[in-house]
Amino acid sequence: MSFHTLAWKGDRLVLLDQTLLPGAEVYREYTDYRGVAEAISGMVVRGAPAIGVTAAFGIALAARELGRDGAEELCRRLEPVYETLLATRPTAVNLSWAVERMRRRAEGLVGRPGEEAIEALEVEALAILREDVAANRRLGRLGAELLPTRATVLTHCNAGALATAGYGTALGVVRAAVEAGKQIEVLADETRPLLQGARLTAWELLRDGIPVTLLTDNMAGYRLGRGGVDAVLVGADRIAGNGDVANKIGTYPLSVLAREHGVPFYVAAPLSTIDFSVEDGSRIPIEERSGLEVTHWAGVPVAPAGVSVWNPAFDVTPASNVSAIITEAGIARPPYRESLRLLAQASPAP
Amino acid sequence: MSFHTLAWKGDRLVLLDQTLLPGAEVYREYTDYRGVAEAISGMVVRGAPAIGVTAAFGIALAARELGRDGAEELCRRLEPVYETLLATRPTAVNLSWAVERMRRRAEGLVGRPGEEAIEALEVEALAILREDVAANRRLGRLGAELLPTRATVLTHCNAGALATAGYGTALGVVRAAVEAGKQIEVLADETRPLLQGARLTAWELLRDGIPVTLLTDNMAGYRLGRGGVDAVLVGADRIAGNGDVANKIGTYPLSVLAREHGVPFYVAAPLSTIDFSVEDGSRIPIEERSGLEVTHWAGVPVAPAGVSVWNPAFDVTPASNVSAIITEAGIARPPYRESLRLLAQASPAP
Repeated sequence: MSFHTLAWKGDRLVLLDQTLLPGAEVYREYTDYRGVAEAISGMVVRGAPAIGVTAAFGIALAARELGRDGAEELCRRLEPVYETLLATRPTAVNLSWAVERMRRRAEGLVGRPGEEAIEALEVEALAILREDVAANRRLGRLGAELLPTRATVLTHCNAGALATAGYGTALGVVRAAVEAGKQIEVLADETRPLLQGARLTAWELLRDGIPVTLLTDNMAGYRLGRGGVDAVLVGADRIAGNGDVANKIGTYPLSVLAREHGVPFYVAAPLSTIDFSVEDGSRIPIEERSGLEVTHWAGVPVAPAGVSVWNPAFDVTPASNVSAIITEAGIARPPYRESLRLLAQASPAP
Repeated sequence: MSFHTLAWKGDRLVLLDQTLLPGAEVYREYTDYRGVAEAISGMVVRGAPAIGVTAAFGIALAARELGRDGAEELCRRLEPVYETLLATRPTAVNLSWAVERMRRRAEGLVGRPGEEAIEALEVEALAILREDVAANRRLGRLGAELLPTRATVLTHCNAGALATAGYGTALGVVRAAVEAGKQIEVLADETRPLLQGARLTAWELLRDGIPVTLLTDNMAGYRLGRGGVDAVLVGADRIAGNGDVANKIGTYPLSVLAREHGVPFYVAAPLSTIDFSVEDGSRIPIEERSGLEVTHWAGVPVAPAGVSVWNPAFDVTPASNVSAIITEAGIARPPYRESLRLLAQASPAP
């Protein structure tokens, strides 16, 4: 891949500023967890797995700042750091998953000197990064088997290398299929309001030479109705224990339209996206963002001043509309309460 | 209404430039049918009924230019005018309906002096304008009865005063319901790529003091799923004899989602939108427009250079997803082949 979403440089985190794509490829450096939190809430970095990894490095950076007085004191000082990072975005569970994993690691170090704790937390964040890429590659290979030799795949938002530490979930499946010699063409929903499909999915697929056609979100139904789409393939921000899937707003209507036209609807996500503590999708918090994302574009107002706006960032697709959930531990089929639990149990805990 | 979509000033046509809304309210004057044709293809004026009325005035303007040598010669000279106007946009049938009506009027004048033909065509265009507003008011009153006393209505694109000679079709129903004392709140899909919902529907409803909330197209499914939407209400660009409805891209998925959630899906359109010569929706030509509408906004590229784009301007909603078609002659219910035919027969031919 000719770009990197995030990279650790020993004493700083480097993020590709996704708010500037596709116009400019700018890498930003972070040495302070507060800046990392702002990067997540401002969507310099986005995508559930990517923000999990980013938060882990935010904690590693905080440890460098706060860890000189030993691990026990560090654990105490990290609590507001966790709070700051957890407050950035509410829907993606990978964020809290990564924070909890870092917290457990820190707590396991109580009694050790500060230097050792700082290093251990850096090593843990690097492990989360490495495991994310490895999980993407594994789930990509597994998911690729679901696609025919020549396939047209419709995707929404960006569940690509830019949404993860690298390779991607939904686009990881596409990449693995291409690597396996399959001919894949991607239809990319532009994904309003922030246009992750137009700005990010189209960009990273063009970079990799994978054929991609852009369409607006409201064209997907007509396209599915015309036939010739072999699968809808999306990522996830949080999967409830019953298989309900929170993902970028606009995913749910695609699932209804896919079912209407007999097109399989696949969700690709690492196990860290599954939240067994949440019974079903109705319990997943849905972030609502500023109306300015809808009323303005490139600084230009596209709606009359004073209009009310509703801007939920995610919706929930019921498990009944999901044909399969592709994870690094295997492919789950309905009923998901059982199949997801089995996959999670079979997978070695990190 | 505090604005006018189109107005005839005796020797020129005045159009509100809808490409500049909501930022600026600019009226443009046309004295030449070629300019009128460009205004239609460039979407200075849009909306099926509005472009029908506009084309009629384009012909009235052409008659002023070409009619000095008598009606017979004028009929001959008008043929390329019809061709130019018909070539502007292929999907809306009101355009060819209005052109055919003007052609019939011109042909009925053969043998008459030029001055009389020029005046008669002006009178005919004015009749088409007046009838369009009257039809909107009638269908508005009929449609308003379908809405509860307090209703939340989801609409797509702009089927308002800006899409007609005045008052509107779908928004005419909303206006009539408000005039009848009902409390109506409108949810307006922004309607990519050209944002007629954000730019036009929100603008004209705010102008009229009717509550409106803007959402992106891909949010409508989530909103319908949450409940509390009483109807989906849209216009039409062409209705086939069997009741299949061509309308702005993104209408079809709304019809599927409305059915999924038990929400009635109403189409409001004058009889001039019904094309009995077309058996079903598969025969309606669907305009595909430039990919630049998707890849650029306010002159700023929002997608990487070189990406392929698919940009159909309309889709077709099958009659089976349509709860009722609201016309000025009455409300048609399934089966539409019979009900539409009956309404058209009961209506006095213009």
